[in-house]
Amino acid sequence: MNILAIGAHPDDIEIGCGATLHKYAQKGNNIYTLIMTDGSMGGDTSIRRAEQEQSNKIIGVKKVFWGGYKDTELPLDKELISKIENVIDEVQPSFIFVNYFEDTHQDHRHLARATISATRYIKNVLFFEVPTTHDFMPSIFVNVTSELEKKTQALLAHQSQVMKTNIGMLSIVDVATSQAGFRGVQGRVKYAEGFVPQRLFINVEA
Amino acid sequence: MNILAIGAHPDDIEIGCGATLHKYAQKGNNIYTLIMTDGSMGGDTSIRRAEQEQSNKIIGVKKVFWGGYKDTELPLDKELISKIENVIDEVQPSFIFVNYFEDTHQDHRHLARATISATRYIKNVLFFEVPTTHDFMPSIFVNVTSELEKKTQALLAHQSQVMKTNIGMLSIVDVATSQAGFRGVQGRVKYAEGFVPQRLFINVEA
Amino acid sequence: MNILAIGAHPDDIEIGCGATLHKYAQKGNNIYTLIMTDGSMGGDTSIRRAEQEQSNKIIGVKKVFWGGYKDTELPLDKELISKIENVIDEVQPSFIFVNYFEDTHQDHRHLARATISATRYIKNVLFFEVPTTHDFMPSIFVNVTSELEKKTQALLAHQSQVMKTNIGMLSIVDVATSQAGFRGVQGRVKYAEGFVPQRLFINVEA
Amino acid sequence: MNILAIGAHPDDIEIGCGATLHKYAQKGNNIYTLIMTDGSMGGDTSIRRAEQEQSNKIIGVKKVFWGGYKDTELPLDKELISKIENVIDEVQPSFIFVNYFEDTHQDHRHLARATISATRYIKNVLFFEVPTTHDFMPSIFVNVTSELEKKTQALLAHQSQVMKTNIGMLSIVDVATSQAGFRGVQGRVKYAEGFVPQRLFINVEA
Amino acid sequence: MNILAIGAHPDDIEIGCGATLHKYAQKGNNIYTLIMTDGSMGGDTSIRRAEQEQSNKIIGVKKVFWGGYKDTELPLDKELISKIENVIDEVQPSFIFVNYFEDTHQDHRHLARATISATRYIKNVLFFEVPTTHDFMPSIFVNVTSELEKKTQALLAHQSQVMKTNIGMLSIVDVATSQAGFRGVQGRVKYAEGFVPQRLFINVEA
Amino acid sequence: MNILAIGAHPDDIEIGCGATLHKYAQKGNNIYTLIMTDGSMGGDTSIRRAEQEQSNKIIGVKKVFWGGYKDTELPLDKELISKIENVIDEVQPSFIFVNYFEDTHQDHRHLARATISATRYIKNVLFFEVPTTHDFMPSIFVNVTSELEKKTQALLAHQSQVMKTNIGMLSIVDVATSQAGFRGVQGRVKYAEGFVPQRLFINVEA
Repeated sequence: MNILAIGAHPDDIEIGCGATLHKYAQKGNNIYTLIMTDGSMGGDTSIRRAEQEQSNKIIGVKKVFWGGYKDTELPLDKELISKIENVIDEVQPSFIFVNYFEDTHQDHRHLARATISATRYIKNVLFFEVPTTHDFMPSIFVNVTSELEKKTQALLAHQSQVMKTNIGMLSIVDVATSQAGFRGVQGRVKYAEGFVPQRLFINVEA
Repeated sequence: MNILAIGAHPDDIEIGCGATLHKYAQKGNNIYTLIMTDGSMGGDTSIRRAEQEQSNKIIGVKKVFWGGYKDTELPLDKELISKIENVIDEVQPSFIFVNYFEDTHQDHRHLARATISATRYIKNVLFFEVPTTHDFMPSIFVNVTSELEKKTQALLAHQSQVMKTNIGMLSIVDVATSQAGFRGVQGRVKYAEGFVPQRLFINVEA
Repeated sequence: MNILAIGAHPDDIEIGCGATLHKYAQKGNNIYTLIMTDGSMGGDTSIRRAEQEQSNKIIGVKKVFWGGYKDTELPLDKELISKIENVIDEVQPSFIFVNYFEDTHQDHRHLARATISATRYIKNVLFFEVPTTHDFMPSIFVNVTSELEKKTQALLAHQSQVMKTNIGMLSIVDVATSQAGFRGVQGRVKYAEGFVPQRLFINVEA
Repeated sequence: MNILAIGAHPDDIEIGCGATLHKYAQKGNNIYTLIMTDGSMGGDTSIRRAEQEQSNKIIGVKKVFWGGYKDTELPLDKELISKIENVIDEVQPSFIFVNYFEDTHQDHRHLARATISATRYIKNVLFFEVPTTHDFMPSIFVNVTSELEKKTQALLAHQSQVMKTNIGMLSIVDVATSQAGFRGVQGRVKYAEGFVPQRLFINVEA
Repeated sequence: MNILAIGAHPDDIEIGCGATLHKYAQKGNNIYTLIMTDGSMGGDTSIRRAEQEQSNKIIGVKKVFWGGYKDTELPLDKELISKIENVIDEVQPSFIFVNYFEDTHQDHRHLARATISATRYIKNVLFFEVPTTHDFMPSIFVNVTSELEKKTQALLAHQSQVMKTNIGMLSIVDVATSQAGFRGVQGRVKYAEGFVPQRLFINVEA
Repeated sequence: MNILAIGAHPDDIEIGCGATLHKYAQKGNNIYTLIMTDGSMGGDTSIRRAEQEQSNKIIGVKKVFWGGYKDTELPLDKELISKIENVIDEVQPSFIFVNYFEDTHQDHRHLARATISATRYIKNVLFFEVPTTHDFMPSIFVNVTSELEKKTQALLAHQSQVMKTNIGMLSIVDVATSQAGFRGVQGRVKYAEGFVPQRLFINVEA
């Protein structure tokens, strides 16, 4: 099975569904990621690109696609939809994970809306959460108790971002661990990642 | 894997998830049903009981449990929760399907609320729809294009109910077929059953 | 009474409210339609235009207005709002029907939002659904049991589109019939069209 | 056309839809009301009964039915549903108006839920608001600019209740006037009553 | 404490939270306003500017910032977010009030969405309502019984707009008074302003 | 200022708002708690009572009221509403905290609904969350970074319950810490408690 995760910035995917991707990778699925912007608001773009490639190696991602947009300037237009469609055409994913449409970051909102259009014939589309997401009530869970360690490693690979949470002295690992613990309680396991389904078929049918 | 479907009345389960149950039964899972009331408002209770047993044989249900309540008088109290818990203890289901909590029928509402309590430690709980359900927006789908025929047979086994839809001259097969066609369009397949998740783990983990 | 239906593409209006428009036309009301884009993604634009005119003749539409936008490129801007306002000024409608704002198609979303602005002083504004619409819970219904036949004819007039549903082997007539059957069940009639009200006055007051 | 308004207590109906009922009465429709409790928490029951009869005479109500329950003790059970069904059977209403299900008063909540069950085959069911209602977002409006005066008279007929709003020195006329003014602004008229539809057919079809 | 209110047009802020701002000003807080557009659809821009300055003097606003956009053309882009961020950087507000994102006016919608981005690190962000706002269910209230008179004066300072409500013969004072009365009833006081919280800390912590 | 927290069982209040109560107690407010049931499903009732008294001493609660109901059997009836009203009459609280109405535990649901009725004239009513709560989207936050240690101590005072989370090997301190960390991230502080407002006045006005 092929799986595609789409994030607006380097590190979005790791926070939202990094452990899930690793879990599926270990089961033999082919994982692909698509990062829409260069993350230039968070640091040097070549560094961010290298960190993302390194992080995705840890998770077990087969290939990282880059959207080529500038950070904070992701436009909600037909071209964005087309770019996502092109990667979907190449990857032929059975499952798609993407940022949620209620979020304080405009890039996340635009990406989510464009992906709703681009994935209209994909059977399984799930939204993930990051710290700027709001009004997110997951009903779909993946138990990641055994994969949290790898998620942490993947997050730490984003060296330049680790302390840039803008929340007290918290690192992105602290933030992601609280999130996994809280979603775990909701799913009645130690650690979980939670998702809102746009559309999900039980028994994946590609 | 063990699966439990809970319905307020004979024939609720068939309309809501009959094809899904059959699909899972064919894959080798153990299917159980629990019918909370005797269906006395729709006809003679011994006839309704026999029809339910016959219908469930068609679907491939292993055992039908009966809640013993009178039709239209399902109380939302601790005893109802306990009865559901008892069947859960016996069946040890990985998946539970049940009526939805927004419905013009009070028995459906009460059953849904009691089941939310009784299933608090079950990993996968999904609500199904019947013609009296309202405000139901499914995000989970099962492709039942190949199972619709068996669903129809199961519905026809409820002989005494076939023409009791109270909607023009429509039979319950007509109603269920429109529903499966409409949910199919939403899932981009010919026929589907749609569900609202209370909680769902991808990769069923019992 | 004057009624205006606004659709993003040729055939949207027929699927969403074609039977309702015909019902009102037969009662002596003046029906107008406004098609915002040329439907070029679905085929040759002159063919689509001719099909729309033919379909609207069947329904009993008095005049078809064309927005002049390219398919999939409807922008959500002030000009779009103005174009809708201009047609409203000319038609002076008591009732407006339009695509819904939750939809996988960006043109539908943009049209709905622009129409919310353009219709701010119109007493009756109702959203209709098409197969790409999601999260749509109609509370307003029109019984179209007697008008379904004409709706089917209007849909078939869109000859070039009939088999382009992208859902198995289903035709747009199949899709529209399931939809009318399902909404009929919700309204307790054989066939219905369902609407979400932005604003509706009982007893139409122009 | 026959219209039935159902209120939990004397004066609920007047606040929620008194002007609408008067408007329809004047157009020649037959208006009926059903008051479920005796209003004993607000004063002497015989006085409240007399006030209700007097108020309904002003509005133009043909007959007042009484549910016979004690104020604040309306139970949400099968008997309540049956009582409502019995009045519906006698009146054969095309339209039903009733209290809303989100309300700080338990009697209002119970009445709304029971009515959802009892009206499952009625084509037009609308919820109205009173000062204890919350989370109420009306999309259906009736212009009552010409009927507000009569609504005020009907409210004043509930002499014993006029100053019992528990809100500063406000009378129920003050409260109802603010409400009608606010809903009017939403509907773009001077005064309106606003409703949430459970189900509504355009073109009333009994 | 510093407080910033952001409105799309001259007079939006007064209608939505004028009395609240005055109440806080009187308690010694520093009030700032930011008006994004010139209000040119409602009249001469220099007149509207002067009215706004005059109105804000009445309320007790320390400084009025102007966004410089043209009325009805507020774009939802990065530049708009930046302009809001710049004023936030200068004012360092503990509280922000802004138009709501469900509204028939596109400028109000765009401003709300941009402000959600610009205020992502602000502890207290509240949405206010104006007559074009819809689907607004306030849970936060400010008792403005003693401040309504000043709110009225501030509204009257927008001389050129007083009769431009497009609702019968109603003035903006009529409209604002109905709104304050209705929200007062919901909060159990005579007059209130109601707000929807994006995020609110009890005990303001700057 | 007097504050009342109402919980269905011993330890509910500590999990939901223990740190907030301690914060307010330290500022000189009078804190009261009302525990509706005896917690008999979790252990010996005299032990649970002693633990609750001990925990509340740690928080700084002035007096613990007991509702006297049996665990899991809290009825949603008039008597429950009256019992809450009686404590409100005695305490005269400006702020009320209570369990939320969407929860897998029936006692929590019933308590929340009864409290909505009992607090209809209270200006500030906030819902808190516990691990069984679902569909809870807090918009109100209290920064409890400095009070988390005391919250932990109060939870540990419920000695008999510490390991009864039914979630892996997690203690209630683990669960509460994840919750406080996650809500902290949403509020942009290290640790927070989050609340859903039923009604809240800025500037507490008793």
